[in-house]
Amino acid sequence: MTAPMRTSHSWPAEPGPGRRALLGSGVGATLAGGAAVANAAAPRAASSDDGESPAGAGRGDDGAEVMPFFGPRQAGVATPPPAHTRWVALDLAKGASLDDLRRILRIWTEDMGRLTQGRPMLADHAPELSQDPRFLTVSVALGRSAFERVGRDDLAPAWLGDLPPFATDALQDRWSGGDIVLQIGSQSPTTCAHAHRSLVTGAGAAVRPRWVQAGYRRPSERPRWTAERNAMGQVDGTVQPVLDGPDDHLIWRGAEDGIWSGASTLVLRRIAMNLDTWESLDPAAKENAIGRRLSDGAPLTGGGEHTPPDLTATTGSGLPVIDPGSHMRRAMPRAAHERFLRRPYSYEETHDLSGGPLEAKDTHRSPHGLLFAAYCADAERQFVPVQRRLAEQDLLNIWTRAVGSCVAAVLPGVEPGEHLGESVLA
Amino acid sequence: MTAPMRTSHSWPAEPGPGRRALLGSGVGATLAGGAAVANAAAPRAASSDDGESPAGAGRGDDGAEVMPFFGPRQAGVATPPPAHTRWVALDLAKGASLDDLRRILRIWTEDMGRLTQGRPMLADHAPELSQDPRFLTVSVALGRSAFERVGRDDLAPAWLGDLPPFATDALQDRWSGGDIVLQIGSQSPTTCAHAHRSLVTGAGAAVRPRWVQAGYRRPSERPRWTAERNAMGQVDGTVQPVLDGPDDHLIWRGAEDGIWSGASTLVLRRIAMNLDTWESLDPAAKENAIGRRLSDGAPLTGGGEHTPPDLTATTGSGLPVIDPGSHMRRAMPRAAHERFLRRPYSYEETHDLSGGPLEAKDTHRSPHGLLFAAYCADAERQFVPVQRRLAEQDLLNIWTRAVGSCVAAVLPGVEPGEHLGESVLA
Repeated sequence: MTAPMRTSHSWPAEPGPGRRALLGSGVGATLAGGAAVANAAAPRAASSDDGESPAGAGRGDDGAEVMPFFGPRQAGVATPPPAHTRWVALDLAKGASLDDLRRILRIWTEDMGRLTQGRPMLADHAPELSQDPRFLTVSVALGRSAFERVGRDDLAPAWLGDLPPFATDALQDRWSGGDIVLQIGSQSPTTCAHAHRSLVTGAGAAVRPRWVQAGYRRPSERPRWTAERNAMGQVDGTVQPVLDGPDDHLIWRGAEDGIWSGASTLVLRRIAMNLDTWESLDPAAKENAIGRRLSDGAPLTGGGEHTPPDLTATTGSGLPVIDPGSHMRRAMPRAAHERFLRRPYSYEETHDLSGGPLEAKDTHRSPHGLLFAAYCADAERQFVPVQRRLAEQDLLNIWTRAVGSCVAAVLPGVEPGEHLGESVLA
Repeated sequence: MTAPMRTSHSWPAEPGPGRRALLGSGVGATLAGGAAVANAAAPRAASSDDGESPAGAGRGDDGAEVMPFFGPRQAGVATPPPAHTRWVALDLAKGASLDDLRRILRIWTEDMGRLTQGRPMLADHAPELSQDPRFLTVSVALGRSAFERVGRDDLAPAWLGDLPPFATDALQDRWSGGDIVLQIGSQSPTTCAHAHRSLVTGAGAAVRPRWVQAGYRRPSERPRWTAERNAMGQVDGTVQPVLDGPDDHLIWRGAEDGIWSGASTLVLRRIAMNLDTWESLDPAAKENAIGRRLSDGAPLTGGGEHTPPDLTATTGSGLPVIDPGSHMRRAMPRAAHERFLRRPYSYEETHDLSGGPLEAKDTHRSPHGLLFAAYCADAERQFVPVQRRLAEQDLLNIWTRAVGSCVAAVLPGVEPGEHLGESVLA
């Protein structure tokens, strides 16, 4: 472990709590990016009064468990995360036109409107598999390359850019990029698989599969916003913005964006974890690297999971209790705008578990890791400063490595009669 | 489709219902092997009064959801199937001795007894991940090659043999065989992953990973014995033997086996499904191939899922309603002993979904399919006749292909103070 670097920071003027308020309020952070609430002592669960039930979710006529499809924002971002989610990247076929892209989105809108409600699609090849949505949501996002592919860069929003390179990345093409990214989530892997097949088939020869990344959370009866342990044992996802309220501007494009109002940015980072070297650490070393207790996710300065950390506390020998290089301390926002929504999922490439134990240099080859999905209005402004700080210094970098990266614009939602992308691809 | 072959059969004398009773009682069958109940009109759920709650399952002191570990038979066979199960094949390292094998089993018995109850193992490297068992079961089975590897073929039971080759197989080494097969099941993939890593790590250099096959069922609040749709949309798992009762001899080795009493045989077949060609069929053709309705799993001769099929019924033009080559008809037992327990799980190789649509010749390359896990006292006597009949003729063979196969002896259960394999490897 190298000593943490000291860096100086400047912040643009930002409405909301100032630096001191943020640093002192105990905003926390988790693996590979910080997201925080303005009032961290009482984080409010997204879209829900009790933090457990999906807002707006209901039961269809046949008792199926469904999430709403129509609305100004797509479901699957601020709705509670289900047990299984997969991200499916597709590239437009060579020579595809804007009309092809529009046609695909029109078909998908129709199909998504039915599948998410537990109804067979038109000309469904397996209608018996379409009737168990289990809170299915499908969210559609476009990478900047989609606009380039159809020769209409001019339609891409200015806020949709690539991430800069980070020194700690070991990105592989096979997990990166993509013209179109579908996010498919449900309590049931069977449902995810069927929706996935149906939508890709429905797009026909105009798209080519690029990659699929499937992840899981611990199961619960219904989707819910709760922190849970990732594969390293770390309690991950404690701190989130307040949804459907004052933090909306952190996640969604606003009315001032006109046709892009209701859009968001997906940043999906595939973070490989070297569990072999990590698990050889003693618990104290793990907790020092994280900055939180393994047992309950509380800061090392005490309290519970939601207690603010005391960054000024020192040990008897004068060392900081919370290591300056700890992940929590490096990832926590240093300005109010360095916050975003996260839906992290664990992944495991079970087909690839036949290797021997990993050495430190092999982290990028690990079959275990985290699909770190972040959602923000502006990735460059909100996500990049945090990721840059983590790339500079984060004790967890010893055991983690980003092996995939993708940025895409989550399209605005639709009302009945509209189709996805209708306004922004006009 | 070729016409079904007519074959003649002879059956050894068998206690229980005779041929006529079986054929007339509506015993059903499902993909790749038939299992039936003696009284198919009222199949009794295994190990459960209501068919939904795991028998003997309880909650630990901390509210964790646990399955019993100790008993004359290992959990994970006749206990209700959880949402996720993986089979992990390991080979003993070159030069491994019987003592090495015994040592591994001793360590695992200790670790399994703790993990399944939500308690950290001794010297647990990630105790915080060991406390959420979610009905975790781990079952240990030995392939015949394990006995050969340690130079003690004489200890292998006579009833543990390889399957004969079947003309319809396209077996791959990467999904076949294995000295040791761990079966790890839980409602939570996180729990499965942690138990898997912990046990393999605990075995040390004496084992080498061979393959991992992970599958899923639709989620339910608790593990339960219910039929559910496989990836082809077929209702699969309707018919099972009666557990903990008169059919025990079909699944378990009995008292007459002495040290092997309480053992079983696992037959794991990896069956690739060509969903691209299958989904291009119209529903009537699919139902004809299966012999049951897609909508509810009822036989094509009517009634509900559990109604006996009328194999003599004909259409107005004199053709049988249930095609003689249909999967149900070919797979259904033609003798009382041609029955076994099934725990089928769907699989999907999401990392491998980047190919184009599959043609008929590509079925063996499909990333979708079924992990068909059968349990019986004697695979040669119970499983092989059914599989031989299916290899001869089964309309579903057009869309399915066995790409992996493995047979292993599920060790007898243990009581406190004993360790797995203690009696049979003495």
